[in-house]
Amino acid sequence: MARITHVEVHDVRFPTSLTADGSDAMNKDGDYSAAYVVLRTDGTDAAGQPLAGYGLTFTTGRGNDIVASAARQQAAHLLGRDVDEMVADMGGTYRYLTSDAQMRWLGPEKGVVHLSLSAVMNAAWDLAGRLAGKPVWRLLADMTPEQLVDVADLRYLSDALTRDEAIELLRAQEAGKAERIAHLEEVGYPCYTTSAGWLGYSDEKMARLAQEAVDEGYQHVKLKCGLDLEHDIRRARIAREILGPDRHLMIDANQVWDVQQSIDWVNAMQEFDLLWIEEPTSPDDVLGHAAIKKGVGPVGVATGEHCHNRVMFKQFFQADAIDFVQLDAGRLASMNEIVAVMLLAAKFGKPVCPHAGGVGLCEMVQHASMLDYVAISGSMEGRVTEFVDHLHEHFTDPVVVENARYRLPSKPGYSTEMYPASAADYSYPDGAYWSERHADAARAAVAAGTAAESVAATLA
Amino acid sequence: MARITHVEVHDVRFPTSLTADGSDAMNKDGDYSAAYVVLRTDGTDAAGQPLAGYGLTFTTGRGNDIVASAARQQAAHLLGRDVDEMVADMGGTYRYLTSDAQMRWLGPEKGVVHLSLSAVMNAAWDLAGRLAGKPVWRLLADMTPEQLVDVADLRYLSDALTRDEAIELLRAQEAGKAERIAHLEEVGYPCYTTSAGWLGYSDEKMARLAQEAVDEGYQHVKLKCGLDLEHDIRRARIAREILGPDRHLMIDANQVWDVQQSIDWVNAMQEFDLLWIEEPTSPDDVLGHAAIKKGVGPVGVATGEHCHNRVMFKQFFQADAIDFVQLDAGRLASMNEIVAVMLLAAKFGKPVCPHAGGVGLCEMVQHASMLDYVAISGSMEGRVTEFVDHLHEHFTDPVVVENARYRLPSKPGYSTEMYPASAADYSYPDGAYWSERHADAARAAVAAGTAAESVAATLA
Repeated sequence: MARITHVEVHDVRFPTSLTADGSDAMNKDGDYSAAYVVLRTDGTDAAGQPLAGYGLTFTTGRGNDIVASAARQQAAHLLGRDVDEMVADMGGTYRYLTSDAQMRWLGPEKGVVHLSLSAVMNAAWDLAGRLAGKPVWRLLADMTPEQLVDVADLRYLSDALTRDEAIELLRAQEAGKAERIAHLEEVGYPCYTTSAGWLGYSDEKMARLAQEAVDEGYQHVKLKCGLDLEHDIRRARIAREILGPDRHLMIDANQVWDVQQSIDWVNAMQEFDLLWIEEPTSPDDVLGHAAIKKGVGPVGVATGEHCHNRVMFKQFFQADAIDFVQLDAGRLASMNEIVAVMLLAAKFGKPVCPHAGGVGLCEMVQHASMLDYVAISGSMEGRVTEFVDHLHEHFTDPVVVENARYRLPSKPGYSTEMYPASAADYSYPDGAYWSERHADAARAAVAAGTAAESVAATLA
Repeated sequence: MARITHVEVHDVRFPTSLTADGSDAMNKDGDYSAAYVVLRTDGTDAAGQPLAGYGLTFTTGRGNDIVASAARQQAAHLLGRDVDEMVADMGGTYRYLTSDAQMRWLGPEKGVVHLSLSAVMNAAWDLAGRLAGKPVWRLLADMTPEQLVDVADLRYLSDALTRDEAIELLRAQEAGKAERIAHLEEVGYPCYTTSAGWLGYSDEKMARLAQEAVDEGYQHVKLKCGLDLEHDIRRARIAREILGPDRHLMIDANQVWDVQQSIDWVNAMQEFDLLWIEEPTSPDDVLGHAAIKKGVGPVGVATGEHCHNRVMFKQFFQADAIDFVQLDAGRLASMNEIVAVMLLAAKFGKPVCPHAGGVGLCEMVQHASMLDYVAISGSMEGRVTEFVDHLHEHFTDPVVVENARYRLPSKPGYSTEMYPASAADYSYPDGAYWSERHADAARAAVAAGTAAESVAATLA
């Protein structure tokens, strides 16, 4: 009988701002970071190794310590818990952690306390997968419809999806599961790349990377946009030429426009046959997205990486404000909420195309997409999951992408364990990387005669 | 020429859970708390006293440290700033603090980082008022329409309200300002009390407090509800009998229902002629509130204390999902966002009836309501501001309520300065109150032979 004996939370930050990886119109200098949670137990897994769960949420640098602090407080509620009992009732575990009314006030179900809850519950799901000896997608796909619906957080959704409807929807997919798993083993799940299109890249670098994407078999390429229309048109023209008429081109404005501005900007780019405009405006603006969707057709509207919970997604569906459902595995509070959103998406007939990149998001969303195909929507049509090829080297079970497709994850767990050395070296501010960088800056400051506070401000 | 030289942030918690003050169907044991920000300068005010700004946001206990930590990081951006320059461009100051893309990722504009931004900017507004020698409502009411619109954050709102419309709307109220200020000086601004209706109070205590409210001249009384329909009906019957047919009775469910459940529950209470149902369901569910509003008429729908930003309020107006606008001065990011929401409310013809209570919320929202009447909506009709009579003794310029009306605040600033002894004694966990309580619990635990960790868990 294993119990959770220790909780560790690490503030891990990678210095991605140095190379403009991840740069867009809203986020120019992100240091891709993770609030990384480890739930240790006194038990062992099937292979006789110490049993633990590893989970994370993604942030872009400053404030990662705030999320880590919230995760520490939430995870503390799991200390001493019996692992078998916890894993046997993951819906109950989730409800227990969300029922702290004092912490709930800080959201509710949004922002820092929801990001941190995601990290904690992601670790719990990793633990559940390891204990069962299954990858998380499989653990969930093997559940009965009733079990899977018990995992899903359906609170506040009953006007759009009842428990009975959800069960019926899952039952309809029962028959083809084994066949679809076999299909995934054979061909994997389609993905697209954003690596070519960061806003900070030169035209030449973007063109070279887009050509590489085509050569690697990608059918979709996405460009960041939104700062300058002429610049966006120039890059879209270059990309479309490289992609040819049959591959898909998408653009992503990262929330920089108002509603009418979104419509005008996208319509000025209609000649490039765009598949979608992503995050045109505030992620909270359901009705704004509905207006944009009406205004920019046939270009589709994609959003979700900042859609903070299932209640917001419900409204995006109800208002017909979304064409592509870009749920985020670190912003929604783990599989408990992801399953609820995927059930809603299936009911409303909208394709789930998860947001990824960052740190560890690809590792997690592959499980969501596989589960969606196997057990929920039962379809791959019109679906494509984001893939960004960086920082995977820090994970012990990194994603494998071949021929522009995610391979089916097979190791037990959620693929979210980092190498101990990575978590240690990039811990902020005391890990080897950051303390060395601080030391460099301090030496430079002494040489330049500037004050210690200004060094701290530069580095903060 | 004064500069901001120090930033202090205090985690102040009052033990309100001991008396069930503030208890409702969602929040049963809140310890009313404030993340309290002090911006110190090297200057002096008009009276020759050291110039500083005092601001806060409200939370219900656990996690107040997380908000304080976020506020500390945001306020640090103001260190060294020239006070005159900062105060002369409060719109720019707000945009500067919201433009940190890394911190923005943790919201955006919601949850912990928005609560903490509110605390910091509330302190900046208090400083601005003290420097000008005016209460904050007056500082804003004395601005030209252009100046006031420059303060307001109109980003993402242009599909509902343009800058030009906002200016025109303010111009239309210019003429009557002096008259309306004189009227406020004479009669004050109407308020209602929630003090009678906490869910944890017995029928007898509720009845006694409702009778006291009537005796004090209140025209409105609000009851918490939502756990048990029979209980709610019984209490509503008692309250309605005390209020008579002409005073207003409201109920508040604090988000415990789904959409259809809200409609059924409220309709089962139609006989009590309710003015509004407050927070029936998730505060994020704009379309759900629209359905509820349609389903429970003539009972109105009130919400806003958890409405996390102006983009959400915009949609509540666009979808006709709200009858009473209960904006919160600690959840919206200070007057910069409150003015934007009040402009929207004026355009859509919806009365602003701010949420208050908690810690310091009454002190702040009186400024918002006075400003709304003097310069924005120009009307008091159908408006009533919440008032809860507790914790005011900790403030140096507490609200004054007479004959169920807030008196016009006259001292310079935002009325948000706490007595230093209050902030110190209730600082968590090291202030006199909490360290003594911890010592008590530790002594009791030793006597009972329980472990130190369980004491810590009980107190956490």
